[in-house]
Amino acid sequence: MKLTIDQIAEAIEATVEGDGSAVIEGLSGLQEAGPGELSFLANPRYASAVAGTKASAVIVARDWQGVCPCPLIRVDEPDKAFAQAAGMLLPAPPRPAPGIHPTAVLAGDVEIGDEVSIGPCCVLEAGVEVGDGTVVSAGCYLGQETIVGNECRLYPNVSTRERTRIGNRVVIHNGSVIGSDGFGYFPDEKGRWQKIPQVGTVEIGDDVEIGANVTVDRARFGKTVIGDGVKIDNLVQVAHNVCIGEHTAIAAQTGISGSTTVGRHVRLAGQVGVAGHVDIGDGAVAGAQAGVTKNVPAGMFVSGYPAVNHKKAGRIRAHLMRLPQLKKKVNELSRRLSDIEQARDAGQADQKTGNGS
Amino acid sequence: MKLTIDQIAEAIEATVEGDGSAVIEGLSGLQEAGPGELSFLANPRYASAVAGTKASAVIVARDWQGVCPCPLIRVDEPDKAFAQAAGMLLPAPPRPAPGIHPTAVLAGDVEIGDEVSIGPCCVLEAGVEVGDGTVVSAGCYLGQETIVGNECRLYPNVSTRERTRIGNRVVIHNGSVIGSDGFGYFPDEKGRWQKIPQVGTVEIGDDVEIGANVTVDRARFGKTVIGDGVKIDNLVQVAHNVCIGEHTAIAAQTGISGSTTVGRHVRLAGQVGVAGHVDIGDGAVAGAQAGVTKNVPAGMFVSGYPAVNHKKAGRIRAHLMRLPQLKKKVNELSRRLSDIEQARDAGQADQKTGNGS
Amino acid sequence: MKLTIDQIAEAIEATVEGDGSAVIEGLSGLQEAGPGELSFLANPRYASAVAGTKASAVIVARDWQGVCPCPLIRVDEPDKAFAQAAGMLLPAPPRPAPGIHPTAVLAGDVEIGDEVSIGPCCVLEAGVEVGDGTVVSAGCYLGQETIVGNECRLYPNVSTRERTRIGNRVVIHNGSVIGSDGFGYFPDEKGRWQKIPQVGTVEIGDDVEIGANVTVDRARFGKTVIGDGVKIDNLVQVAHNVCIGEHTAIAAQTGISGSTTVGRHVRLAGQVGVAGHVDIGDGAVAGAQAGVTKNVPAGMFVSGYPAVNHKKAGRIRAHLMRLPQLKKKVNELSRRLSDIEQARDAGQADQKTGNGS
Repeated sequence: MKLTIDQIAEAIEATVEGDGSAVIEGLSGLQEAGPGELSFLANPRYASAVAGTKASAVIVARDWQGVCPCPLIRVDEPDKAFAQAAGMLLPAPPRPAPGIHPTAVLAGDVEIGDEVSIGPCCVLEAGVEVGDGTVVSAGCYLGQETIVGNECRLYPNVSTRERTRIGNRVVIHNGSVIGSDGFGYFPDEKGRWQKIPQVGTVEIGDDVEIGANVTVDRARFGKTVIGDGVKIDNLVQVAHNVCIGEHTAIAAQTGISGSTTVGRHVRLAGQVGVAGHVDIGDGAVAGAQAGVTKNVPAGMFVSGYPAVNHKKAGRIRAHLMRLPQLKKKVNELSRRLSDIEQARDAGQADQKTGNGS
Repeated sequence: MKLTIDQIAEAIEATVEGDGSAVIEGLSGLQEAGPGELSFLANPRYASAVAGTKASAVIVARDWQGVCPCPLIRVDEPDKAFAQAAGMLLPAPPRPAPGIHPTAVLAGDVEIGDEVSIGPCCVLEAGVEVGDGTVVSAGCYLGQETIVGNECRLYPNVSTRERTRIGNRVVIHNGSVIGSDGFGYFPDEKGRWQKIPQVGTVEIGDDVEIGANVTVDRARFGKTVIGDGVKIDNLVQVAHNVCIGEHTAIAAQTGISGSTTVGRHVRLAGQVGVAGHVDIGDGAVAGAQAGVTKNVPAGMFVSGYPAVNHKKAGRIRAHLMRLPQLKKKVNELSRRLSDIEQARDAGQADQKTGNGS
Repeated sequence: MKLTIDQIAEAIEATVEGDGSAVIEGLSGLQEAGPGELSFLANPRYASAVAGTKASAVIVARDWQGVCPCPLIRVDEPDKAFAQAAGMLLPAPPRPAPGIHPTAVLAGDVEIGDEVSIGPCCVLEAGVEVGDGTVVSAGCYLGQETIVGNECRLYPNVSTRERTRIGNRVVIHNGSVIGSDGFGYFPDEKGRWQKIPQVGTVEIGDDVEIGANVTVDRARFGKTVIGDGVKIDNLVQVAHNVCIGEHTAIAAQTGISGSTTVGRHVRLAGQVGVAGHVDIGDGAVAGAQAGVTKNVPAGMFVSGYPAVNHKKAGRIRAHLMRLPQLKKKVNELSRRLSDIEQARDAGQADQKTGNGS
């Protein structure tokens, strides 16, 4: 798609500073962009790259000050505006034509909505329902009585276990597994693990996006819940009976242990671990690699292991980095104190021998 | 399935306290349960939820003291009893009928036992053997000469590489990979990595359960071994030549590096990392996110990075959390010491000038 | 394959110490090896196992000193020599015959080179190109316009998204996902996440090896790049717009956040986390479980969280382990200081009351 700077600016309610007639046909980062490409400045960290960019236009904040060799497109939120421009300029993921591929294997009682695409080598077990406009890509497996809502997209090799419920407009990327057994055993008298049946289900709300090779376990009983609007990155583990509140975002390789409740609008960074049976309050944030071992109050930002208030964790880390110096100082104090003690003891000895001043 | 409280109690050798005639048809947590549902109290943390439960019966320990609005079912081990009740009341995972699906692709010399189910789009390469009563679900791939024992269940999209050996009653969840190459290279004179052939195999014992999207690498030579009764959670990495002893349990996202030996009845919590060429003794435990860098004696509980005795790690963490206060105290000592030194130095100066007391 | 010790030694340019006529038909570790097997000593840690080995020959360094019950094969690099011997003695992974399996589903315009093998249940979308001698195993999915070079091997259930580019001699293990969407959203006025289109691609160089169940995200725009000769272990996450330099090695379960640049010949150990928008210089190394939060200079070895110079991190950890003792010492200093202060204060009181010496 090709659009002039002016056409883009009009669509995203922006002001153009400079000549808006140039044609844009791609997007790129400030340093990588070339002629014909649009770039943007959202992170102040990259401000110094604007002056040297070879882009044909740059989206910046309305109040941004600085020198740019090409026209500026001023907006309220450069991040959002760039995303909108990307949607106009660049190709959306290709969408397969509706229909059921002849190599797909569907049980007799499967219910398929309108304009649905079921890809090659998919398997849909008995009682599966797929809503209108949903795409089930090649190699997906939907277990018995899995219900998928409208306008969803399951990328290749996604699999669900029996009785999984998926809302509307849900996207699940390649290789993710929804509804596998939770990890529950108790030891018998010889210490051999006996399985606790995992007979619950998974319920995924509307507008959820789940990354690639993610695992979401079914509940032991009841259900594992992923609320509306939740976004989950790649290789995340969600254990049995976890409940994740609406519009929460979870970055890659994070793991949430069983029966933990994560609130709404929470953000968990990458490689975070959350213990079981913990409550994370609405709007809380956990920094990368944090180990959350107990409840987190609403709105608190925690980090470190064990995770504590981020500011406290930062102070502790700063002190930790200076621990060798602290040890040195203590040694020095010890020496100075010994000097004083020796002088004192010598003085007392003098007094005892009548040798005082 | 519907059973009365008395029927359940009889089956699990329990004592009923209250009216045992009510009908139970489901299970749930103390807080989520409603009429007709059975709940249980195993974790003392939830004791306060018993008084307010809407369940129709609660399984508790024989000596539990407390108020409950519904009949109690007293047992020795509530966890175990609840698991047994779950097995009676709730549906087991649906089991496909025996037979080979017409879309499965089997090499000519594959050996299939009695009552085996091979699902749609499975691929079984030359020399594969599958034992009696085993279910190989849709989309599984069994590499050359893979041998799977009796009564196993491979969920969809599991894949094995050539010469993998799997025992009896083994369960492997969706998307797991058994027998991929170990990570072994040596640098050539230009620092380019040259591959060390990974020509060993993987051997999995009886009664093993492996979660979803797990990776178990084949040995460089010899074999990677997973002992009888081992339970592995989702997204775990088991590197080449690792040997895991019987009845060990490994929680999600833990990784075990090459040539490490893990003993019997060991428990590794979630997101643990174990270095290569390390021995973990029988019955040892590693806490969540621990970084195990050296041998762990049998029975020791370690945590932290680098992992040390858990009690020591706890003490160190407690001191770490109070590090800012320690620094403050050292600063205060330093000031007090300076005061004394100044007084001393002033005194000595006085003496030198004949200005003493 | 069977070879005499002399035949192996000749092929790997080694010197035999002892009788070179014995026949070797397998390889194993020093402790596991039996008659007819070759072993090796590369890691000094295992030197004590040489004396007790039951192997028929052991590869050691030219200058190794020690007692061995069997003939020695002396070489410059035992690791490399053993790998070469393994390549001669042991079976390479079975290679499917060229051809397109009848159950594979190929779009009309797919371009397939010579001697290519496309396995059962593979799906190749429109515009896909596969180079000469490449093996695409069972259940792989290649999205629209994916280009795979010559002599590659994609193991079962690998999937790529549209416009992925893969070089020559690339190996990708089972279940890995190349080109899934990056994790990019911005919050709307109600805190609901709005998706930023991920319209870039992934470009993988020559001689790359990627482990099992790895995820490599496509760029937001532009491309995610994995350079020539890069080796990636299982369950690694590579986020959008990451650029990984040539001949870098990344161990299992490591995650690299968006827009980070990793240099050439870098080594990241297992379970490392790298923050977004960070630069890691050529030849840098990150220790296991390190949390890299800022730029790492070329050649620096970092570890810990936050990752700092490895020697500094080691010193800090050593001090940390002795923190309880430091606290004790500070308490002792405080007591000694109080003693002195009390004596001083008593002395001053004496002076005030005319009770001095």
